[in-house]
Amino acid sequence: MRHDHLISAKQLTRQDIEGVLDRAASFAEDGGGGHEDHLLGLLFFEPSTRTKMSFDTAMKRLGGDTVDMGSVESSSVKKGESLADTVRVVAGYTDAIVLRHPSEGAAKLASEFVDVPIINAGDGAGQHPTQTLLDLYTIRENAGLDDLTIGIMGDLKYGRTVHSLAAALTNFDTRQHFISPESLRLPRGVRYDLHETGAQVREHTGLEEVLPELDVLYVTRIQRERFPDENEYRQVAGQYRIDAATLEAAKDDLTVMHPLPRVDEIAADVDETTHATYFEQAHNGVPVRMALLDAMLGGGGE
Amino acid sequence: MRHDHLISAKQLTRQDIEGVLDRAASFAEDGGGGHEDHLLGLLFFEPSTRTKMSFDTAMKRLGGDTVDMGSVESSSVKKGESLADTVRVVAGYTDAIVLRHPSEGAAKLASEFVDVPIINAGDGAGQHPTQTLLDLYTIRENAGLDDLTIGIMGDLKYGRTVHSLAAALTNFDTRQHFISPESLRLPRGVRYDLHETGAQVREHTGLEEVLPELDVLYVTRIQRERFPDENEYRQVAGQYRIDAATLEAAKDDLTVMHPLPRVDEIAADVDETTHATYFEQAHNGVPVRMALLDAMLGGGGE
Amino acid sequence: MRHDHLISAKQLTRQDIEGVLDRAASFAEDGGGGHEDHLLGLLFFEPSTRTKMSFDTAMKRLGGDTVDMGSVESSSVKKGESLADTVRVVAGYTDAIVLRHPSEGAAKLASEFVDVPIINAGDGAGQHPTQTLLDLYTIRENAGLDDLTIGIMGDLKYGRTVHSLAAALTNFDTRQHFISPESLRLPRGVRYDLHETGAQVREHTGLEEVLPELDVLYVTRIQRERFPDENEYRQVAGQYRIDAATLEAAKDDLTVMHPLPRVDEIAADVDETTHATYFEQAHNGVPVRMALLDAMLGGGGE
Repeated sequence: MRHDHLISAKQLTRQDIEGVLDRAASFAEDGGGGHEDHLLGLLFFEPSTRTKMSFDTAMKRLGGDTVDMGSVESSSVKKGESLADTVRVVAGYTDAIVLRHPSEGAAKLASEFVDVPIINAGDGAGQHPTQTLLDLYTIRENAGLDDLTIGIMGDLKYGRTVHSLAAALTNFDTRQHFISPESLRLPRGVRYDLHETGAQVREHTGLEEVLPELDVLYVTRIQRERFPDENEYRQVAGQYRIDAATLEAAKDDLTVMHPLPRVDEIAADVDETTHATYFEQAHNGVPVRMALLDAMLGGGGE
Repeated sequence: MRHDHLISAKQLTRQDIEGVLDRAASFAEDGGGGHEDHLLGLLFFEPSTRTKMSFDTAMKRLGGDTVDMGSVESSSVKKGESLADTVRVVAGYTDAIVLRHPSEGAAKLASEFVDVPIINAGDGAGQHPTQTLLDLYTIRENAGLDDLTIGIMGDLKYGRTVHSLAAALTNFDTRQHFISPESLRLPRGVRYDLHETGAQVREHTGLEEVLPELDVLYVTRIQRERFPDENEYRQVAGQYRIDAATLEAAKDDLTVMHPLPRVDEIAADVDETTHATYFEQAHNGVPVRMALLDAMLGGGGE
Repeated sequence: MRHDHLISAKQLTRQDIEGVLDRAASFAEDGGGGHEDHLLGLLFFEPSTRTKMSFDTAMKRLGGDTVDMGSVESSSVKKGESLADTVRVVAGYTDAIVLRHPSEGAAKLASEFVDVPIINAGDGAGQHPTQTLLDLYTIRENAGLDDLTIGIMGDLKYGRTVHSLAAALTNFDTRQHFISPESLRLPRGVRYDLHETGAQVREHTGLEEVLPELDVLYVTRIQRERFPDENEYRQVAGQYRIDAATLEAAKDDLTVMHPLPRVDEIAADVDETTHATYFEQAHNGVPVRMALLDAMLGGGGE
């Protein structure tokens, strides 16, 4: 991969993706190093556990170190500094910057002001490309990326993770099934883009009809905030919740994924099944981010 | 020491304790290293300065590094994730986890879900075993652990530090004096357990009668919140406050300890006396935690 | 430089300053190292981005590491611990301490309790000596410190940065012009001290009359809180705001500085001019702090 910044999964070709996944597999196997002189800036303008800790871990596993802005409350952002100024300052301290920000387009904007690589770790309703890469890595390791039948279930309207994954999967030979309540269907624009690529896409309101075919079931959370009424929320959410009994209708080697945090859309009894892959998925954030950082910082780890 | 997790001081035998203290003494003397490839996860669900910073320091003095979840407010715990899920994710990033949590039993619970070692850094009213180990280390360095007469004073009802230390001391040849207001006596269960071990234990409501015999005086804070009435609090707290004049009745080599933070239960003029050992005690947290981490991570530091 | 602590820019002789700047220039050129065994404690009792991140970066660029207290909310300071106690504890963990605190005199106080070097990173309305050093470094790199004509504009009454820089500049052959509204003039005491040194000092209420002579224009923010009336604030602040058009009357090689964060006292179109030096100025915090840390920790980096 040779990009100055990683803003969107859309900028990644199949070759880019496969390069990162191959490199990640090698880091997962052999560990990393070679970046002892590199510092990564962590600018998280929104709470995060998994993403921030896994970037922090990845950089340290590469032998480097990180410099963290800390929470917005403890930073001078409170004094009214613009994002462009903050990023320009930090770019002079570090060799690359990971940015999470509540505003869509923030990472793109930031990348226009600095020379060091910017990695988008989520920009509001926008992109979160390293999540997509670790999802792809997890799928490839467990089910393969070709001749794949995947179901994506839950909140398909607001979930940026889902839109980005769906788009990235069109680089591969996959059949995508989208399972959601009517009110949380994939947005028209996303559907349109998928169809344009010639992707095999179907939509469902229930899991039962498609579960037996699936190689991967990717579950996302249905957020209470999306429903004006608590009762309606409970009713809808309950239909898209899975437990061990649900999965008895699935293939033996079904891979169940979730971007985490989960609340109760996957029952704890699923954790004990061989289907449960969501913790492994989270762990895969480390080698995938090692691979990305290594590539963007100039491949010291090779 | 060979334990998968360190949840409670109760799991430590005399041999375990002496092993850690010997190793700590060696780290205090010679410094550490050998853990360049190890990462320690810091999961503090409650505020902490001393404990967190000294684990952070200990790991870095061993040559390793840490990955910090940050405050709960800046983490996805806010999104409703369970402790078990958070710990399972972080266990995939790091080689061991230090956990502080407001709920008693949290560390035990966490240890049931992961393979990496969990070190309990305080679970509500429960255990805080590394505090006990650094207390024992400080006592051994200053007064010896055998043929010891120790007074433990202040809030003996709610202080987890005190219960844990008292229990651990029964492994050694010690006489324990407990000095507190009637309303803050050791809980019946703790007293019962101490007597069961055959420990030499006495209770007092005043310090004067026992002070001249003591080798160590361990002071703890009496918290305002324990008293419904401000006046009653002041009156009681005032009786268990020491200053340099108080200590004139003590042995010349009395060691005064306190788990910190103190508010005003030890007057500033004690700091200037040779009795004051509470800052040294805090500093001992580093070699003791180095010793623990080194043992639990597989002894790279030897 | 051979000081136990760095509390105030006033303690620095011309020779001290030149020693730090020379060393900083060498770090900027060649990078650092040699402090692999050193830990720096970061105690920030007030929000900070630039200062904290640049100390963190500086220490890591020297090969060392940092241990961070975190925000006051997540520390035991909340439990009522005194600054002296906190600092004494942390001094036992680390090899030097950087302290920011809202109370004037805090760093001096802290330095009286510990043996490890204390570096003042801002104590309320008091001193912020490393800011002064990086300002001097930036001036020396861009305009030289001798035969210098500098304008310092904005809030000259409350800005500690300005007072400290003005005093430090009297060590060199400089002409200082102070440009501010009447209500935000340099305090009488500061003016008196400057005159005492024989410094060439003039005050102005407008930039136009002096701009063409300047080698350096140092802009500071006029804070809304200083004005009881919003309209008055806007009117005054507007007069001390610069943009690219303003600078057409300046020398071609005018250096424009600002301690950051800026709000709107320097228009974005200045960023594109060759005058803009405020991001470089912020970046210079790293080599300057590397130089200081290296000197105070015993020159491992040489």
